[in-house]
Amino acid sequence: MMPSRGGQGGMSSQLRSASFASASGSTTTATASARQGTLRRPSVGSRLSFAVSTAERGEVQNDNGHGIAAEHQIEEEIAKIKRYEDFTTIDWVQDAAREQLRRKSRRKKHAGLFDSGQLDWRHRLRESYDAAQGWIVVTIIGAAIGLNAAFLNIITEWLADIKLGYCTTAFYLNENFCCMGEDNGCADWHRWTGIAPVNYIIYIAFATIFACTSATLVRSYAPYAAGSGISEIKCIIAGFVMKGFLGFWTLVIKSVALPLAIGSGLSVGKEGPSVHYAVCTGNVISRLFTKYRRNASKTREILSACAAAGVAVAFGSPIGGVLFSLEEMSSYFPLKTLWRSYFCALVATAVLAAMNPFRTGQLVMFQVKYDRSWHFFEVVFYIILGVFGGLYGALVMKWNLRAQAFRKKYLANYAILEATLLAAATAIVCYPNSFLRIDMTESMEILFLECEGAEDYQGLCESEHRLRNVLSLLLATVVRTFFVIISYGCKVPAGIFVPSMAIGAAFGRSVGIVVQALYDANPQSVFFSACQPDVPCITPGTYAFLGAAAALSGIMHITVSVVVIMFELTGALDYILPTMIVVGVTKAVSELFGKGGIADRMIWFSGFPYLDNKEEHNFGVPVSRVMITDVVSIPTAGMTLQAVEQLLSKDSYQGFPIVEDEHSKILVGYIGRTELRYAVDRVKRERSLSPLAKCTFAISSSGLDSAITPMSQSATINFDSTSSTSIDFSRYVDTTPVSVHPRLPLETVMELFRKIGPRVILIEYHGQLAGLVTVKDCLKYQFKVEAAENPRDDSHLDEGQEKLWVLISRAAGWVSDKVSSASGGRIRLRDSLEQDRSALLRDRGTTAGNGRILDGTEDDLVDDEDGVELENRR
Amino acid sequence: MMPSRGGQGGMSSQLRSASFASASGSTTTATASARQGTLRRPSVGSRLSFAVSTAERGEVQNDNGHGIAAEHQIEEEIAKIKRYEDFTTIDWVQDAAREQLRRKSRRKKHAGLFDSGQLDWRHRLRESYDAAQGWIVVTIIGAAIGLNAAFLNIITEWLADIKLGYCTTAFYLNENFCCMGEDNGCADWHRWTGIAPVNYIIYIAFATIFACTSATLVRSYAPYAAGSGISEIKCIIAGFVMKGFLGFWTLVIKSVALPLAIGSGLSVGKEGPSVHYAVCTGNVISRLFTKYRRNASKTREILSACAAAGVAVAFGSPIGGVLFSLEEMSSYFPLKTLWRSYFCALVATAVLAAMNPFRTGQLVMFQVKYDRSWHFFEVVFYIILGVFGGLYGALVMKWNLRAQAFRKKYLANYAILEATLLAAATAIVCYPNSFLRIDMTESMEILFLECEGAEDYQGLCESEHRLRNVLSLLLATVVRTFFVIISYGCKVPAGIFVPSMAIGAAFGRSVGIVVQALYDANPQSVFFSACQPDVPCITPGTYAFLGAAAALSGIMHITVSVVVIMFELTGALDYILPTMIVVGVTKAVSELFGKGGIADRMIWFSGFPYLDNKEEHNFGVPVSRVMITDVVSIPTAGMTLQAVEQLLSKDSYQGFPIVEDEHSKILVGYIGRTELRYAVDRVKRERSLSPLAKCTFAISSSGLDSAITPMSQSATINFDSTSSTSIDFSRYVDTTPVSVHPRLPLETVMELFRKIGPRVILIEYHGQLAGLVTVKDCLKYQFKVEAAENPRDDSHLDEGQEKLWVLISRAAGWVSDKVSSASGGRIRLRDSLEQDRSALLRDRGTTAGNGRILDGTEDDLVDDEDGVELENRR
Repeated sequence: MMPSRGGQGGMSSQLRSASFASASGSTTTATASARQGTLRRPSVGSRLSFAVSTAERGEVQNDNGHGIAAEHQIEEEIAKIKRYEDFTTIDWVQDAAREQLRRKSRRKKHAGLFDSGQLDWRHRLRESYDAAQGWIVVTIIGAAIGLNAAFLNIITEWLADIKLGYCTTAFYLNENFCCMGEDNGCADWHRWTGIAPVNYIIYIAFATIFACTSATLVRSYAPYAAGSGISEIKCIIAGFVMKGFLGFWTLVIKSVALPLAIGSGLSVGKEGPSVHYAVCTGNVISRLFTKYRRNASKTREILSACAAAGVAVAFGSPIGGVLFSLEEMSSYFPLKTLWRSYFCALVATAVLAAMNPFRTGQLVMFQVKYDRSWHFFEVVFYIILGVFGGLYGALVMKWNLRAQAFRKKYLANYAILEATLLAAATAIVCYPNSFLRIDMTESMEILFLECEGAEDYQGLCESEHRLRNVLSLLLATVVRTFFVIISYGCKVPAGIFVPSMAIGAAFGRSVGIVVQALYDANPQSVFFSACQPDVPCITPGTYAFLGAAAALSGIMHITVSVVVIMFELTGALDYILPTMIVVGVTKAVSELFGKGGIADRMIWFSGFPYLDNKEEHNFGVPVSRVMITDVVSIPTAGMTLQAVEQLLSKDSYQGFPIVEDEHSKILVGYIGRTELRYAVDRVKRERSLSPLAKCTFAISSSGLDSAITPMSQSATINFDSTSSTSIDFSRYVDTTPVSVHPRLPLETVMELFRKIGPRVILIEYHGQLAGLVTVKDCLKYQFKVEAAENPRDDSHLDEGQEKLWVLISRAAGWVSDKVSSASGGRIRLRDSLEQDRSALLRDRGTTAGNGRILDGTEDDLVDDEDGVELENRR
Repeated sequence: MMPSRGGQGGMSSQLRSASFASASGSTTTATASARQGTLRRPSVGSRLSFAVSTAERGEVQNDNGHGIAAEHQIEEEIAKIKRYEDFTTIDWVQDAAREQLRRKSRRKKHAGLFDSGQLDWRHRLRESYDAAQGWIVVTIIGAAIGLNAAFLNIITEWLADIKLGYCTTAFYLNENFCCMGEDNGCADWHRWTGIAPVNYIIYIAFATIFACTSATLVRSYAPYAAGSGISEIKCIIAGFVMKGFLGFWTLVIKSVALPLAIGSGLSVGKEGPSVHYAVCTGNVISRLFTKYRRNASKTREILSACAAAGVAVAFGSPIGGVLFSLEEMSSYFPLKTLWRSYFCALVATAVLAAMNPFRTGQLVMFQVKYDRSWHFFEVVFYIILGVFGGLYGALVMKWNLRAQAFRKKYLANYAILEATLLAAATAIVCYPNSFLRIDMTESMEILFLECEGAEDYQGLCESEHRLRNVLSLLLATVVRTFFVIISYGCKVPAGIFVPSMAIGAAFGRSVGIVVQALYDANPQSVFFSACQPDVPCITPGTYAFLGAAAALSGIMHITVSVVVIMFELTGALDYILPTMIVVGVTKAVSELFGKGGIADRMIWFSGFPYLDNKEEHNFGVPVSRVMITDVVSIPTAGMTLQAVEQLLSKDSYQGFPIVEDEHSKILVGYIGRTELRYAVDRVKRERSLSPLAKCTFAISSSGLDSAITPMSQSATINFDSTSSTSIDFSRYVDTTPVSVHPRLPLETVMELFRKIGPRVILIEYHGQLAGLVTVKDCLKYQFKVEAAENPRDDSHLDEGQEKLWVLISRAAGWVSDKVSSASGGRIRLRDSLEQDRSALLRDRGTTAGNGRILDGTEDDLVDDEDGVELENRR
């Protein structure tokens, strides 16, 4: 069963409170209602008609708002429980209903205060505080994100430089700060030694230590801090609940381990983790405010805004961040969220700009300005760059997913060792290449530059070194692509944006140099006729820039945000069109290899219940083909408390439809597991009950008439009735669950899930309950169809992986033996290795998560993936 | 009744065709199905289970796709009719279903071709053509929009300049082209005469002639070409149908009349009309392609993309255009539309750039580059600019709506006269002011410039003229604001973007000059300590720039798009933060005066059925309070043809729910008026029928079982049965109309309308039909509530308008008398005036559309607004 079985009395109670409001409104004096008029209130007309209809039914009540307050409290308690149910999805419909109830209850309270004529200015203040709360929260979060980003930038740069040397004036300064104001190094900045091989070894040692520290921190304190986090955050923003993923410890560890991971020289970037720590910040801070503590869907708005701020500070691109949040992160992005994101990104960027971490006035290292424009003939080469971007994305996605599968299957218990060895290997391979040795952001800064007037790194601009540079850059492209494939997904904070951009930049620059060489060889050719004679015609830096855009677009499958981010990095008006062309070509090429960027593939790979809005499905089947027909339903009356508790003790159902009786199966409502649990516990806490006490879930003696005008009667609950033989659970029943016809096409049902967002949709045929469908059921069907369409034979892959693993473990055994014999048996690596391995062999086969959908009941999968680490999560 | 009563057999027939596919699939040979496998096809599993379930029911059919083709044809015919029903809304649900049917039918056809082993490459080609059709259409449209924009830019500039003088070398050149390469005018460009007053008169004469021509063209050929069009397009993209609004003649007239209107010097801009002609282009071109001819909701995607391209060419800002379409125009903006918009804007901008209409490499006249950065202390003044923007927007919206109401009530028959007189008045007042005299885009170009190094207009940069310039600019601000208020909405193509920006720029520049003066007076002050001593500290041009952003944001209530547009105008990285701050302040101030920009207010004012997604409602009532309960429903059997035709002859219902019988009222489906009309006509065309023939609408002998597996039986229709006593309409019935519970909150129902988009939602209670609700019913209720919340007393306004009208008509009478006496009675203006006036007096009172919602049945309103003009629309 799917975890997303819920639904709640939110709507029904909202209706009930509406009738409360009107009923009491009709009994207050004219003066009071005139005063009430200054607040937002229901129209006079509607209130009148309510009063009339209530009076007609002879049900004028003198409720003074206490009922609503009590109801409100119950709602909030349930909401609090539900917020922390792991691996479930939130119910947008119900959250919206609760928010309306909250507002109504507040309005009601104020109306009461108005009546007594007191506390006017105080609750006016409170009112405006409540209205401004969203903006206040966003401001605080934005500032915190900006500060954190500045801090991270400084630490990262220092860590990257300390591998190469140190500052004699003050050890805590990086090369740039040490040599402030001077170009190309200075006397204060010392290499560690004068001997190159020793420097090499020191470089490797630092890289290894950093990676090991980072992986240990992650594994010990916050396993969720590993990786990029973008795919999980996508699911969380769409309504999935993952306890601890956005917690305080994840925030701390991600902020500390990220600079270490980048400093270690691993081919990982900081943009994905940036989004993750930004969203963590948002979650941690918004929890301090009542408005967000209980409303999970309102919190999602804040999280969308935080994702925007995270990208904004990572790229120094506030608008790009907003668009990224819109294009990639958020399945639901109303205008209000757009403005929140805008504001959050603005504050974060402004704080970062005020901190000025690079002391250059730039927000990121690789910001650049171009003075020259482009020529139409260059479009030919732009298309090459675009094609490269698309191919790069497809290649990396395919092989990275295989690497991930391998990692999940064989390396789950060697997370720290893996990261350490990767860092060592990266350092060993990369040091000799001058473009791979330095930090990726730094290398991009160098590759983006126009040659004229700027400092020259390694003779990059000199025409006599062209061949060497081109080869060096192409080598860098290939090597880094390989390391990205095997590094992305290892258990340190790791993004893929910057590595991809660095690869694109290296390739782009080499294309640029080749084009420049072509032009220099044939300056009079017709093809280059647009060039002016005295000015440099080709700017290889712009090719690097466009290559970076292509690779970023290719890996993430985003377009508009890439263009804006690149535009905000250069501010070059002239290069909007080239960027758009390159990204457009990349997009077209990528589409040939399947939909969705790496984040979407990771979601699919991890089996999160996420309905992708990029794909258009065409199943051509009605929902009845997908629905679960053997639903356990509860009759409105006649069930004993014992039977209800038995139902609850079975873990497989997340909610129960309420039917009139078992035979007619006339649908009257739905009760969530959580609500029922809460209700039973509450009832049992308040008084002792016979297990044979009857439970009633009836709302009213049904009938069309009572359905048209909502009842006020059912709001007062019979808890304190002396007859313990009947317990009334009706207040917990959602009387208006989303229900559809069994013949409705599956596509439409999926659209309902996506756009309206209920946990469960009931299938009703002529009033009778016919079945029930959840997001998971839809996804299961979708996977089945996809598997049938593209039958995959993975056996040779599995074999290959098996062979690779044997090879690796043999090598590890050999190393272990050598170490053991060299140390005289005091260091024994093999034992632990063997142990883990046998444990692993037991589990194998159950781990490949492809096509499975994660939910709360599948504990094996969860444990498998993160081992004991999950015990530590907060 | 609402026009949006529809619903159709789309979904049900889709189900039926699904079973066709599987039924025939199961009878084909294994080879054939293996071949079929190369195409996208339903999963093996689903096809098997279909075959089994079909076989079980003993209904193996040998249908070879003809049934689907026939069905398809009927669908398309109905779609064609529906596409042109004026003032109705489209049904997104049904359109999506039809698209799926179309794909399925094509797939089926191809499968058949595969069987015969023919035509492999041909339909492969056709297949890829069909897939690429969207992109091809967008490319063509983008290119057309870019060309049109370039043409308009050149014409507009020439018309604006010809008022002041002419080019002696070639009369068709404007001042810039005439004096190409020279600054501040040249000898080839002549003023009309050497005498200033004569020039003044010539200026006025040209302005008047242009305005009169423009208004006459609009009135005579395409009344829909008047105004900005943005609010109407918003509604159209949301699904409203307005025949002719996006037609060919509107396109032609808008393209011709727009340069005239701008050239006339009226305070109108070209950005709104730009969007309109772009969307017209899209509509006209997309109609040539089958994919879009019949699918109204697919066409909407293209229209969204066109809106983006329209703004892109108007501002030379491709990304800004995409964001504008997202933020302002489109209620529904999936990622696919984002990419289409991106591509369309790219093509349009590239074509415009290639045309290079200004021969400066710039895409718009007021593009500018800033070399200097800003200082933190300037934020104080930025906030002033932001506040100005908010106040400006609120003021203009309030008074412009009043002006519109006055225009609608009194001036409907004097459209041409009004535009002409307005142009004359504008010319008379504006000529003396040097900033008002020139074209608005030109004035912005001048105001945006940094002083250093650029040409100096009217001593704007000289410190001795500061006082004069500030006063002149403030005067320009006030005068232009007044003219915008009375001009926007007059019956020529007229946008409000550029006038607003020009006003903001004038105000901003004056603030900038004041700040500069302050600095010059106290260069040593602590406040200015951030200034460096030798460099100019304050750049008044940036204030003008930010002022323009503030005013644009204030009037349209857009944020992110304004920032991106302004950024794309300057490319100044440093000014993103200031722009964001200014726009943020403007947004906050605007919110104090109510939600929604001028486009939203115009929608409300015109009474279009548009559910605004900016507002959050909190009605707290169930849908049952709003629904229509006395619904005319059709029983599944027993109704005579005569009775059905009688139902159809009553014009008030747009569709009919189908119930099992009149007493039980068990809901089984819904049939749209159009479908029923079509079905009856078709039946009558094919054979003669007794009016007493019974009509059946039954789908099946209902029951849960048959509901779960869709029937293939009902697809074959009993048209050629010999018993003429029974006519089967079941194929036209939509068996799965969207239906909800009567207690569902109204807010949720409105969300369903917004996000899922049906024409009508049925209210079903325990399987029985309880009522029916449409967008219009929701809006009616909303207006009622809003009216009750903010009771408005318009009587003094009405009185004021009446007085104003008396004044105007007296003045007109006096002028007419004078003319009459001067011409010896040969020219008699008064008669026609009197005639029109008396006609007007008759109608008055029914014309104020506030709070009314436009639909097809209200012919009086439509006629009222546009008179006989509507006869000409295409």
